[in-house]
Amino acid sequence: MSHLYFGGADVVELAEEYGTPLYITDENRIIENFRSYKTAFEDYDTDIYYAVKANGNLAILKLLAREGAGADVFSTGELQLTKLAGIEREKILFNGNSKSDDDLIAAVESGVRVSVDSYDELNALASVSEQLGAEVEIAIRVNPDISADINPKIATGLKESKFGVPYGEVMKICRAAHSMRNISLRGLHCHIGSQILDVRVFGDAADKMLNLVASLHEAGIELEFVDLGGGLGIGYRPEEKAPTPAELHDALLPAFERNKAEAGIAPKLILEPGRSIVGSASILVSRVNAVKHAFKNFVAIDAGFNLLIRPVMYDAYHEVVVANRYNEPCTELYTIVGPICEAGDIIARDRLLPEVKRGDLIAILDTGAYGFSMSSQYNGRPRCAEVLVRDGHADLIRERESFEDLLRNQKVPARLR
Amino acid sequence: MSHLYFGGADVVELAEEYGTPLYITDENRIIENFRSYKTAFEDYDTDIYYAVKANGNLAILKLLAREGAGADVFSTGELQLTKLAGIEREKILFNGNSKSDDDLIAAVESGVRVSVDSYDELNALASVSEQLGAEVEIAIRVNPDISADINPKIATGLKESKFGVPYGEVMKICRAAHSMRNISLRGLHCHIGSQILDVRVFGDAADKMLNLVASLHEAGIELEFVDLGGGLGIGYRPEEKAPTPAELHDALLPAFERNKAEAGIAPKLILEPGRSIVGSASILVSRVNAVKHAFKNFVAIDAGFNLLIRPVMYDAYHEVVVANRYNEPCTELYTIVGPICEAGDIIARDRLLPEVKRGDLIAILDTGAYGFSMSSQYNGRPRCAEVLVRDGHADLIRERESFEDLLRNQKVPARLR
Repeated sequence: MSHLYFGGADVVELAEEYGTPLYITDENRIIENFRSYKTAFEDYDTDIYYAVKANGNLAILKLLAREGAGADVFSTGELQLTKLAGIEREKILFNGNSKSDDDLIAAVESGVRVSVDSYDELNALASVSEQLGAEVEIAIRVNPDISADINPKIATGLKESKFGVPYGEVMKICRAAHSMRNISLRGLHCHIGSQILDVRVFGDAADKMLNLVASLHEAGIELEFVDLGGGLGIGYRPEEKAPTPAELHDALLPAFERNKAEAGIAPKLILEPGRSIVGSASILVSRVNAVKHAFKNFVAIDAGFNLLIRPVMYDAYHEVVVANRYNEPCTELYTIVGPICEAGDIIARDRLLPEVKRGDLIAILDTGAYGFSMSSQYNGRPRCAEVLVRDGHADLIRERESFEDLLRNQKVPARLR
Repeated sequence: MSHLYFGGADVVELAEEYGTPLYITDENRIIENFRSYKTAFEDYDTDIYYAVKANGNLAILKLLAREGAGADVFSTGELQLTKLAGIEREKILFNGNSKSDDDLIAAVESGVRVSVDSYDELNALASVSEQLGAEVEIAIRVNPDISADINPKIATGLKESKFGVPYGEVMKICRAAHSMRNISLRGLHCHIGSQILDVRVFGDAADKMLNLVASLHEAGIELEFVDLGGGLGIGYRPEEKAPTPAELHDALLPAFERNKAEAGIAPKLILEPGRSIVGSASILVSRVNAVKHAFKNFVAIDAGFNLLIRPVMYDAYHEVVVANRYNEPCTELYTIVGPICEAGDIIARDRLLPEVKRGDLIAILDTGAYGFSMSSQYNGRPRCAEVLVRDGHADLIRERESFEDLLRNQKVPARLR
């Protein structure tokens, strides 16, 4: 029986040692993915801000900090994580469409930039900065009104989306921001969506954003940077060809070159990749608890949408393999289901696999992005462990939760004890 | 300005005292909902097993234990919670389509009944029981092949569902179980789905299940109980009329009476309500961080699908009200969105509300079921607090998580420190 290896490690041995379910992340894959961005964009002034929401594990953040990554953070919690990981504050952008006063205070006190989503937020940020006697650097989050051919739940650049200032109102809010005493307008920011496989739409976004930069330049407002967000897709399906950072570069740069020729300005480019850095770098390994020949051949494993919500939430596809019988001939169609009490808890439908038995190990591939980060304790299930492998050596980066973690923070009033 | 009261408490005062977001649960409402089941079924031998997955808060479990509730548990974690809450082991059924050896051992050692989902599980349970020198009482989970008019993600009784033994194979697996030494077959179990508003389908399920009980009786296999699961819906929309436990009783009992008259047997009835016990008993209170007049009038609050996933996951509807301006005239249409970085993070669309401003409080109603229990720390957001109110007095039943809770269990390998 041949075993699946990942990051140089025998997946079956890791499952024995650390138990299941288990997220296994390949350190070198993350480094390669990150460096491919750096290399692709080395001919233009570009910073890569990792989108922490994709996978906020502290060890992974430390790894990326060491590689020189900045961070796109979406909450005070993510801000604190990135600071702890050692990411430089100059390369942190505090994003979000719904920031509380506490969030704004945390941002200003940390000295990071803020992507401002609305007039309400601009005014709140101005008063927070004034109260703290500080100046805060901002970008305006622009709704570029661009449609990408992706799941509507993650299409963030449509005009009906909740994110950003409507395209036609950007000049006005920039003028307002420019005139505020404790606000320093430095850039424009947009994000058109996630898991985008056709890079041409990024070129459209660059054009629209650079047009705004040029108009602001004409109006006497100079910007330092344009942040085009993230969204580069990865190849979840065998037939899916993921675009490379180099292809993204080639889709974006003509817009920057035109803008430089026409308007004479060349703002720094910021990108916020998440999925394309970590997505392919993890697998989720799960034990088979039952095989049932019913309406379908069901394989019931010990990981469900408590640990990987993408299949039920976005109808997402993940490749699955039998880790302890890797490369054996595939002979039967199986539907892989989790242990959660919902009919929708299906990880993979109708997959051709070698014969599966109770006790086998199913590895779900490409689960590094929006995997553990969206996990829950639903159905009373403590969350699983995570290991980081490098050249065959594994380190535990998150301990398996215990029953105590289900009770943590709970309190029973005296009258009910 | 009039304030929303819930459980006799001023919601605005609770939000000030405990912060937002905040789940507020009304103790008396839970007791009333539970007792309405007891009353409705007092003329037939019936046990009510609360479906822990709906809301597994320990204080709520203790409350229900005191009322005499049993428990439908779906994992070892839920089993441990119910034992800790003091629910009698004779009234706990360990359900689930994917149980590990550890789960089966926990069930047998705890002396609770097990609902067996497949042959694989039956065989595994028999060996576990034999190894432990114990006898385990079981039910067979039946797939009744019944279609309820509900969201397919929660329609669990369709023949294509992952749950249970196909209807046509139940006799066979019951004979097998009956002949096993460490297995004591006591009942049949099914569950046709969730949020069901037309009770007639429960009558169909009762008929199908009782036909099996009668056939087994003819074959010399006597069963003690039939567990028809849960699934009674609640009225989320103003125009939705929720069926009462009394209506459920009237839909079910004719099947039991026919069966008694025809086959001379009257098995105990077990029901597993979850949503209809706790759903209406909680609200989620959230602070407005921004109001933005864009393609829609967006109200950005501090709770999103990290704390209430039902709207994005099931297209579910929840009523929302402005808690600090309750009963004021509704003048504008608003779309309520959360702080999560996904376009799908929309709590409520196009709702007529009084004018909303930054700092206002939005109460999301009927969030007691599948609310906190499905919560996550996605986007680096510590989970919120919960209070239990009774006659206007509030007790904290879950402390707000802190940044430390995001770091908990994480480990950084020495080489990355």
